[in-house]
Amino acid sequence: MTGGDIERLIQLLAKVPGLGPRSARRAALHLLKRKETALEPLADALVAAAEKVRTCSTCGNLDGIDPCSICVDQNRNLTIICVVEDVADLWALERAGGFRGQYHVLGGTLSALDGVGPDDLNITGLVNRAHDENVVEVILAMGATVDGQTTAHYVIDRLADCGVSVSQLAHGIPVGGELDYLDDGTISAAMKARRPI
Amino acid sequence: MTGGDIERLIQLLAKVPGLGPRSARRAALHLLKRKETALEPLADALVAAAEKVRTCSTCGNLDGIDPCSICVDQNRNLTIICVVEDVADLWALERAGGFRGQYHVLGGTLSALDGVGPDDLNITGLVNRAHDENVVEVILAMGATVDGQTTAHYVIDRLADCGVSVSQLAHGIPVGGELDYLDDGTISAAMKARRPI
Repeated sequence: MTGGDIERLIQLLAKVPGLGPRSARRAALHLLKRKETALEPLADALVAAAEKVRTCSTCGNLDGIDPCSICVDQNRNLTIICVVEDVADLWALERAGGFRGQYHVLGGTLSALDGVGPDDLNITGLVNRAHDENVVEVILAMGATVDGQTTAHYVIDRLADCGVSVSQLAHGIPVGGELDYLDDGTISAAMKARRPI
Repeated sequence: MTGGDIERLIQLLAKVPGLGPRSARRAALHLLKRKETALEPLADALVAAAEKVRTCSTCGNLDGIDPCSICVDQNRNLTIICVVEDVADLWALERAGGFRGQYHVLGGTLSALDGVGPDDLNITGLVNRAHDENVVEVILAMGATVDGQTTAHYVIDRLADCGVSVSQLAHGIPVGGELDYLDDGTISAAMKARRPI
């Protein structure tokens, strides 16, 4: 139907999350029509990312340097480590702002169903970091899912003799959320975790 | 928030149709986590496409060769030219199958609103091709939109003294369409164009 190069580009674009076979064709056409302004810059950015971006050996973040720019930032609080499932969660917390400590990326959650055990996650690295005398608090920022909370409980056990205080993100009504549209679990959690004004 | 290379990749992915800022982050992370299997092949495909894919000087199709593989295919009917607005439409017709003639890509539709006049489209190229004594039929396959039909009428005028028969794709009820859900215009068009069984 189309040239081999175009066909191959469409196939690879179709594997990008958010794009399917149909939108991959549209994306490929968009890029091919705008070689100088869209296709080549994207190709360059991908090549640069492939060459330069690596996983931080300390925290598991992705960055152009190792240790990553968060780990080496002297203006950040070195005494608090926030544990997240994935780099995407780290990015979300950075976008939200307000947290200026360190991170630790586990690389997923424990999941019996998917066969993910403790050795598949970067938990030992976290325990080693928590043993550092400078670290005083570990914040667990896993998702409020079954797997996320299972992982949180496991991490709490592993951190028991590290001499750090462990906290967890608050569960409750999301900002802007209407009670009427929220699930029962969230409302119960918010009720249990109510705070005096 | 993230390394400059990652930020730049996200920004460029966000401009791809089908991806927004949010899904671009997800796509970037997906690619960065799968360097060998996803990121590098996509980068290679983009580089190859940038180098090799060009616009066919005959019909306006995109392909790795010029004239394109459809124009040089000796098994295709050289006497019929199907006129489409865009390469995407050409691809759609090829996917649908059934047409084994030549194509001509106009590169858009006439649009007073967007300031697109006849000189902005590849209409002169079509008229020149239609003057070829081998060409006996021109099929207009523009969309059933106001701009598409305006363009079709203009092209019909320009082809008047080329000595070719001009036809247009049938308008009517789409296959699988239920009358109850169709707009009045489609139903009227289908009624007007009704055919004896």
